[in-house]
Amino acid sequence: MSKLFMFEKPLGMRDTFPNLYQAKASLKTKMEETMKAWGYQFIETPTLEYFETVGEASAILDRQLFKLLDQQGHTLVLRPDMTAPIARVAASKLLQNKQPLRLAYCANVFRAQQREGGRPAEFEQVGIECIGDETISADGEVISLMISSLKTAGLKNFTISIGHIGFVRELFKEILGTEERANTLSRFLYEKNYVGFREHVNQLSLSSIDKQRLLSFLKIRGGKDVLQEAYPLMEGQAGREAIGQLEELSALLEDYGLAEFVKFDLSLVSHMSYYSGILFETYAENVGFPIGNGGRYNKLMEKFGKESGATGFALKLDHILEGLGFPESPVTDHCVLFSRERRGEAISFAQELRSQGKSVVLQDWKGITDVDEFSKEFTEVSYFIGKNGKGGEEQ
Amino acid sequence: MSKLFMFEKPLGMRDTFPNLYQAKASLKTKMEETMKAWGYQFIETPTLEYFETVGEASAILDRQLFKLLDQQGHTLVLRPDMTAPIARVAASKLLQNKQPLRLAYCANVFRAQQREGGRPAEFEQVGIECIGDETISADGEVISLMISSLKTAGLKNFTISIGHIGFVRELFKEILGTEERANTLSRFLYEKNYVGFREHVNQLSLSSIDKQRLLSFLKIRGGKDVLQEAYPLMEGQAGREAIGQLEELSALLEDYGLAEFVKFDLSLVSHMSYYSGILFETYAENVGFPIGNGGRYNKLMEKFGKESGATGFALKLDHILEGLGFPESPVTDHCVLFSRERRGEAISFAQELRSQGKSVVLQDWKGITDVDEFSKEFTEVSYFIGKNGKGGEEQ
Repeated sequence: MSKLFMFEKPLGMRDTFPNLYQAKASLKTKMEETMKAWGYQFIETPTLEYFETVGEASAILDRQLFKLLDQQGHTLVLRPDMTAPIARVAASKLLQNKQPLRLAYCANVFRAQQREGGRPAEFEQVGIECIGDETISADGEVISLMISSLKTAGLKNFTISIGHIGFVRELFKEILGTEERANTLSRFLYEKNYVGFREHVNQLSLSSIDKQRLLSFLKIRGGKDVLQEAYPLMEGQAGREAIGQLEELSALLEDYGLAEFVKFDLSLVSHMSYYSGILFETYAENVGFPIGNGGRYNKLMEKFGKESGATGFALKLDHILEGLGFPESPVTDHCVLFSRERRGEAISFAQELRSQGKSVVLQDWKGITDVDEFSKEFTEVSYFIGKNGKGGEEQ
Repeated sequence: MSKLFMFEKPLGMRDTFPNLYQAKASLKTKMEETMKAWGYQFIETPTLEYFETVGEASAILDRQLFKLLDQQGHTLVLRPDMTAPIARVAASKLLQNKQPLRLAYCANVFRAQQREGGRPAEFEQVGIECIGDETISADGEVISLMISSLKTAGLKNFTISIGHIGFVRELFKEILGTEERANTLSRFLYEKNYVGFREHVNQLSLSSIDKQRLLSFLKIRGGKDVLQEAYPLMEGQAGREAIGQLEELSALLEDYGLAEFVKFDLSLVSHMSYYSGILFETYAENVGFPIGNGGRYNKLMEKFGKESGATGFALKLDHILEGLGFPESPVTDHCVLFSRERRGEAISFAQELRSQGKSVVLQDWKGITDVDEFSKEFTEVSYFIGKNGKGGEEQ
């Protein structure tokens, strides 16, 4: 191979070394246990899917998709998220008995990056989907389970910011009329460019009352009391129902005893076009990006030919680890060094320690060049070397 | 999306449902614990690698590679094995202090398939690599750890078939001379087409003594005593050293108390061209394919610019599960059904059960259409419905 490529990895691709691997594994185990305790069942879907099935449904920008052709000439994608594949599974196999399904996953997803130093092109998500239930109870369960999982993981300072895409759509429809104008404003919200939003609103040919409605809407953020401020902004029934759903959700989260972790932000939107109701983003102290997000996506199920409620969340493991602080390197407890003559003794000694739950490296001293250098990384070292020794010499 | 593709998955791609997922997770945990107890540290490498780096080094047939172009025009591959990526990591980062490295992985690998009904195009491997140690002790450790992992996993009847690629190469070089002729014969061995091998040998223009050497060689299979039969076949020193290594390995496995699990097969070869010494395949009762394989691959490290010993194994999780028998579906212990009025009570009741280690589905009865159908899959069901009830009514 060329020297140039010998040790290189593709753009945005990373190796995970033992310290991070172990921290991730321990984090996953804790979160998975919580999800199972809430009756969620884990499934796995393929890394590669048809573009026409999952690539299109996933609502990820085309330039972020890794695409390839299979030998039959079909376009495949490396899954850019897990919600679309699970919707595929749920719609095709599991919804036949029309009962709510509680599914969970822990999987790598892929987003092609344009430049180095940017975001990872492959990252691990853990999440759940509650499919086949249109009640606010399902939305509340999803958010409560996310909070419980994060608490179990040991994360302390985090906040769920909750909005309702139906409210935003209704408000924009009432005031702006066309979808094109609504999309322009939504983009400002998605980019959290509130200055740009205000400037754009002021340039629109709208009545001063309507401009004020759009500007006031930006400020509806905080505890459950702010929801009252949203009613005067809406004329139609659909928007008022959206606020009612958020009030119902708020009461539900109080019943769960988790209200302290949430705040409302009615200007929250998503680049995922399939959301249809309550949606949310999760932030942790000292982490620059959202550590997770989710919401109701009944529209996605429609794409797979099923009229069905669906809601879920996805958390990014790397971002949660960032919030938890840098992990320590795993330590191997014991090293047993041996020479040929005393090999049998060394093996028995190592196996005995392992059976006591210790991690033990068993090393032929002929396999190493520098005994001191090799043995210094272990907590304890025992020697079974030479003909005349009697037992392990402890250091 | 088109109806045609709505629920389809690419050729050889599978969904893993909860029963299989859980069985796999439990199997992985057991094997990982064993590997950690032997001082192996887990790492993860990217799903995508440069073709020039890992695709070429992996020695997988080109038509089995999933290839794509990145935005800079480089060819990427979905990793077809884990040995080459770990060799990349070891050579680039970890071998600087020239000490043996013990690395482990549990990862999906990818092999494009030509037709449906064939093998999976994505499958999970768990394995280890011991890098930087040229002793037979390292080969013996790798095989012993594989046996211990399989025993911990609960597998009972399995056999490791052990050969030495150096022996085969020397024998063929002595008798056949050219690499081309050696490759033709090796292919029969790789395909385990012994009838074809014999026919081909009989057609070669060789002395009857040499023909007999090639035919006798096929029969050297069994316990450690068969190794004595190999010496008379070899004239040169290199081949005799290979047999000596197998004898040393046999003694080592006796010290580990694991000799009962192995047999020798001197005609064992591999399609992986990077093997350079002892190599092996693992078979389990009632499983039609090898459940794992491995060996010494010092040649691969040379490709990454390092002269270094390296040996390891890879096990296929799906095949091990096949050997263990079909898994049962995971069961959710309890279902708590509630209506709005008694939601608070229901939440507390569910949380209490979960804190006792039970898995509990909490379900708003408005979210389901058929209570009897829904509740029949749970071991226990409690109802918190209506205004007047007092506690959970157990069924």
